[in-house]
Order: sequence, then structure tokens, then C-alpha cells
Amino acid sequence: MILVNENYLKLQTSYLFVDISRRVGAFQKNNPDREIIRLGIGDVTQPLPKASITAFHEAIDEMGNPKTFRGYGPEQGYDFLRSKISEFDYKQRGADISPDEIFISDGAKCDSGNIQEIFATNITVAIPDPVYPVYLDTNVMAGRTGYCKDGRYDKIVYLDGNKANGFVPCDLPKEKVDLIYLCYPNNPTGSTITKEQLARWVDFARETKAIILYDAAYEAFIKDDNLPKSIYEIKGAKEIAIEFRSFSKTAGFTGTRCAFTVVPKECAAYTTDGEKVLLNGIWNRRHSTKFNGVSYPVQKAAEAVYSPEGRKQVRELIDYYMENASIIRSSMNALGYECVGGENSPYIWIDAKGIDSWAFFDLLLNKAGVVTTPGAGFGKCGEGYVRISAFNSLENVKTAMSRIAEVLKNV
Amino acid sequence: MILVNENYLKLQTSYLFVDISRRVGAFQKNNPDREIIRLGIGDVTQPLPKASITAFHEAIDEMGNPKTFRGYGPEQGYDFLRSKISEFDYKQRGADISPDEIFISDGAKCDSGNIQEIFATNITVAIPDPVYPVYLDTNVMAGRTGYCKDGRYDKIVYLDGNKANGFVPCDLPKEKVDLIYLCYPNNPTGSTITKEQLARWVDFARETKAIILYDAAYEAFIKDDNLPKSIYEIKGAKEIAIEFRSFSKTAGFTGTRCAFTVVPKECAAYTTDGEKVLLNGIWNRRHSTKFNGVSYPVQKAAEAVYSPEGRKQVRELIDYYMENASIIRSSMNALGYECVGGENSPYIWIDAKGIDSWAFFDLLLNKAGVVTTPGAGFGKCGEGYVRISAFNSLENVKTAMSRIAEVLKNV
Repeated sequence: MILVNENYLKLQTSYLFVDISRRVGAFQKNNPDREIIRLGIGDVTQPLPKASITAFHEAIDEMGNPKTFRGYGPEQGYDFLRSKISEFDYKQRGADISPDEIFISDGAKCDSGNIQEIFATNITVAIPDPVYPVYLDTNVMAGRTGYCKDGRYDKIVYLDGNKANGFVPCDLPKEKVDLIYLCYPNNPTGSTITKEQLARWVDFARETKAIILYDAAYEAFIKDDNLPKSIYEIKGAKEIAIEFRSFSKTAGFTGTRCAFTVVPKECAAYTTDGEKVLLNGIWNRRHSTKFNGVSYPVQKAAEAVYSPEGRKQVRELIDYYMENASIIRSSMNALGYECVGGENSPYIWIDAKGIDSWAFFDLLLNKAGVVTTPGAGFGKCGEGYVRISAFNSLENVKTAMSRIAEVLKNV
Repeated sequence: MILVNENYLKLQTSYLFVDISRRVGAFQKNNPDREIIRLGIGDVTQPLPKASITAFHEAIDEMGNPKTFRGYGPEQGYDFLRSKISEFDYKQRGADISPDEIFISDGAKCDSGNIQEIFATNITVAIPDPVYPVYLDTNVMAGRTGYCKDGRYDKIVYLDGNKANGFVPCDLPKEKVDLIYLCYPNNPTGSTITKEQLARWVDFARETKAIILYDAAYEAFIKDDNLPKSIYEIKGAKEIAIEFRSFSKTAGFTGTRCAFTVVPKECAAYTTDGEKVLLNGIWNRRHSTKFNGVSYPVQKAAEAVYSPEGRKQVRELIDYYMENASIIRSSMNALGYECVGGENSPYIWIDAKGIDSWAFFDLLLNKAGVVTTPGAGFGKCGEGYVRISAFNSLENVKTAMSRIAEVLKNV
């Protein structure tokens, strides 16, 4: 008799986006003429950079010509892309990451979900709260947790984000932890981590032989040059950190799909006998066995992001969203609401001043016609907050904020 | 201390393609003027169908325009593609598969590698020999096997293919098995299964509450209308079978990346308490948690395969490779070599008449300058055979076969 992986039955059904969509649908039905502005989901709205569009078209012409057609490419990605990433994203920032430490994939969601497979099942995992749900769910599926009770899974060490720590959990865990998820600039709170704070985590991981999984999908939004864009800017990180990056938010690739993961050659885990096992080879084995490489035209479109025009166009895209973020943040501040994020990230995390997440969400939806995301959907510590995303047109953001101002003036 | 998944350390390093490439490199070095013809790896060589190229370009233009730009799509794939697959690949063949039973992915390798995650670890897996190595390797990684000894992993039930059964293992396992991998048309042997043979497997799975994972990546090469293209052409299969398909070999998508998996709504596994759990929902949870959908332009290119021009162009592509297959098969037969495959599949599996796989490979490489694949690389039962692939240009195949004829005449 075929047995199901019963860990899947422990998963809590997330009604977050289903619930949002139900409430938005009901509102639209009752207000058919009201134009709803969506600042909820973290999805880009601006077109791909022109340099990527051009390279994408050229690559497709190659695929239509028998002389230039490409079949299977390397599972790890083409060297033309890996070498650009090595140079522009790492070496130019002082982080010595070589092309063969970079694995091209079709998404940071896939990578941050799949990475846990290369570790043992009986390890202890530390996960921030509030957090992007993939880290937790994939560890539940793999059997590293008990059941969920009162919104928290047994066996997980939660790293609480709150007003006191500015949503940057910095109290090192007292429990033994083996695998630590960190995400900066943070989704959902938009908080960022300083080099000093990150160095504390790196030192902790080195001392305790833990691994840090560093999700830097939003690094392109960092404007403050003192903030780390990569964990490898921190001394000693290469031995204990794996980093995830994506073209999704940087260059508008959410619907085009390209990302990468860095597994440095020094980075190691251990057997139960204490023998060191290098993870670059283990991840390479996983990647080449269960993945067949990213679409060639997509890799060419991603490569174009590093051309002089591509870099300029990406900078303009980021600046565009960051102007939105700045408007959202200053509008909310002006209305007397405290915010995290929005200065080096596209998310603004709003303290609802004692109103619960869903009530504040409903207020903004029903009175202002603006969709946000209730913080409670990202974990217990998100209660009392909403996330506003800067991913929309400047016009829509301006309209949304003036509508919100009208509503909140009278609250 | 972070522990590695020690199951990875059980994996046998496959030197198959590394070894082939080393031998080919050495030959080329010693014979710099000899033009090598590659009939080894199963990778397509002909360009994408024109209909796909056109749709691909159009979709990229949409991605460059703010009015038509697409961000995240549904993880399961766009309905425009799922509904075409449902109609053309299933309903028109009498198999009632609906769009919400179809999950679009970036490769059959990924899907056939990932699918085992939704089952318990302590199940027994039956895997053919010779076989595509992904089925076995992903179960080793998941801890469903013991160590490998004399080329076979402990705890795996091997389904032997051999001359007596025409490389279609039909002796139902005497051991209890829970998960059964089948692949027809077969990689590497090119063998096909009849409806009656497949019905025996379906009945066996229904009786024993097992699941069949049916890899139909090569179904487009079936010319004989009596052979099943899908396992769902067999009565009762929907309760016990999951099917994998791909655009890779059908429409030349090996470098473009699009495939799909069918998990019918009736298909179920069980908890240890014997409770039925429907797998469509479980796979949907896995797919939407760890995957973010296939690139929108790629899905548009795949959709175009189902247009009237697309279907005609795909038929021409398949016919092109099948003419190659026919030439390879008839040439080898004329030389007195028995073959499996090549009639409804792009692979021809050659009995080397007592010469071992690698020796026969070396003979064809060193004397004829033709690269094949030694059967031993696909499992114990592949010893004494080589695989010749029809994926190359007609001209190259003709030249290769006349060179091979010259060599084998004198063996």
C-alpha cells in the first residue's frame, strides 16, 4: 500500500491570499465603479528592461535557426551568466565568489524551498517571525517539525521580530540551532540588517557549526552603501552561508523566471561521525539530478541586465519603485503611523496603532479601495501590522496614498 | 552542528557521460581531422517549430509593454496551456483528463525527480533496469534505499529488462512494491508497451494499492496507433497513475524548458491508518510551495505547438527524427545486429553480439568516429548493448551509418 508523506498533513492551509482575494472580490461587487489599487502582493508591474527584451528576442532567433539552436544547457547555468554575476554582484563588492559557486535556477522560491533537502532531517531550524512562508512550509514537508499549535510549529526555533528590535531579530538563540534562515532586506517587513548585526550571526554560526541560509532577493533595493548586499561581505561567511538571489524584483523577472544560489566551496556540513562534507558538491549533485537548467533565452535576457544599458535600466526600475516606497513611507509617517522599511526595500511595514491586522486591512480596502497585506498572515509577530508594497505605478501609489490619507485623518 | 543528508553519500558517481566525453576528447585529439558524429546523448538538434518561435517573440513584446506585462503567473501554469493539453493530448485520445489535473513545469526531469517527495520514506520502490538514472538517484537521496553493492542498491526492487521480455519487464513483482516507475517509449531501450501489457500493470497497482509513475516523455514518437500514448488510455488508471510528459523531445524544447505532470483527482495514497489522501491536492501544495510557474513566454511558445501550424510542424520534426531512426535500425539489422526500438521511439538499442558495452562503444568511436552510449551506463541489464539516438541531422545519420557499416562488415 502506497503511503503518503504524512508531514504534508501537518501543513496549515494558508488562507492569506485566498482570504484577501475573497474580501477584495466582495468589495468590488458592492462597489463596481470603485477602482481598486493593489499594493498587496509583492509583484512587479513595470516591463522588462529594454536590454533584456532585445537579448531575449535575439536568443529566440537563435533557437529558430539550426546553426545556432541550443538543446540542453549546463544544469548549473551558462558560464556567460555565471561569470557576470560573479563579477558584478560579488567581486565588485569585495566578495570573492567564483562562477562555479553560482547555480542558476528558475526562482529563489524553488531554491530556498529545495535547499533544505541536502541537510539531515533531525536538525533544528531557526526561522524568523514574521516571514515568507516557504522556509517554514518546506521544513514541515520534510518532517523537521511537529504539529502546529496556536500558530507555531513544534520543534521550530522562532526568531521574533518586533518593535523593540526593529524587526531584526538579534538575540542569538539560546537553544541549539543548526540551520538559520535570514532575509534582508526583509520580506515582509522591509527591515535591513547592518554589517555589525550580520557579523554577529556569522560569528554565531561559525562557533556553533550552524549554516545560515541568506535570502537576499531584495538586495537591489539597498541604497545605503553601508548596508551589506551580500552575506559574503562579512568576514568568514563563506564557510557557513548559502545565499539566494533573484532577477524577479531586480529586473522584473517574476513572470520570466531566473534566479541563482551561491554555495561557496568552503561551505560545509557534517556527518553524524563529525566528518566534514563540502556542500558545493552536494548541491551540485542535487541540482544536476533534479533540475535541467534555465531556459536559454531567459538566461540571455538575464545576462543583458549586466550590460551598461541593462544596468542603467535596472537602476531606473529600482529608482521608480523606490520613489513609490518613499511616498508611501512619508505619507504614513505624516499621518502619524510608525513604519519599518521603504528606505532600502520595496516594502513598508505599518504599525496599525493597536488595530488588528485584518481590521486595518479592511479599513483600507473598504474606505480607500486600497489592497494591502495583513501582517498577521506572515506569522504571530505580524499581528497589528500591515505590509504596503511599492510595486505599482507612481500614479496609482499617489492616488492610493491620498485616498488613505483621507480615511486615516478621520480614524 | 549542521548535519548533511547522508543519503547523498550513498550515491554512486555516474561516470557515464564524463567517461564518454573523456574518450571522445582523446579520440579527437589523436584524430584532429576526423569529423565526429554524435548519436549519443538524447538531445534534439532541429530548431523550434516556427509557430513556437512566433508566439515566443509575441510574448516577449508583451513583457516589454507596461499594458501587457505579466508578473507572477499561476504556479500550476496558465489555463491557455493546460486546456490545450487536456483537449489535444488527452480528450482526443479518449482519456478524460481535465485542465486542473495538469501541472505545467519546467521539465519532466524535475517532476519525475520531485514526485517521490509526496510519498512516505518507508515505501518500497520498483525501478526498471536499464533505466534513466533520475528515478533511482532521487530515491537514494530521499533515503528509500540502502547502500549500493555490485551496481544495485539495497531495498530497491529491480524490474529486469532483457532479450526474453523485449526490454518490457512484465513479470509482476513477487515482493510487495508501493511505487512503480515505468517509461514508454522507453529511455534507453526504445521499447514500447502494448495496451494489454500496460493493463496488467494497472490491474496489479489497483489490486495492491500501489502507484505507477508513468514517464511518457517520448509518446510523440509512437506511430503505431494501437500503442498507448498515455496510461490513462487504460481503464482504471486514473486512480493509480501519475503521468509525466514533456515538450523537450516533442517540439525541441530541451533548451527552452517546458513539461507537465498529470495527477488525476481520483489518484490517492494512504496514511498509515489506512485513510485515503487524494494526491492532486498534495502535489498542488508541493508545486505551489516550491515552484513559481514556468516563464510566461515559454508557456506561450508551448501553447503554439497545439495550433494547426504548430501541430503540422511538430509532426514534421518527429517524422524527421523517425526517418533517422528507421535508417539506423535497418542499417544495423542489415549488418546482422538485433535491435529494440527505433520504430515508435527515437532510440535504437543494439545487441552488441557478445561484445561488452564499452568495447562496442570504443569500436564505433575509434573506427567509425561515431559517438553512441554504452548500455551498461543505464544499469546492469544494459551490459552488452549500446544505445544509438536518432537526434541528429539526416545527413549525419546517413554518414554515420555508412561509416559504421564499413567497420562492422569486418568485425
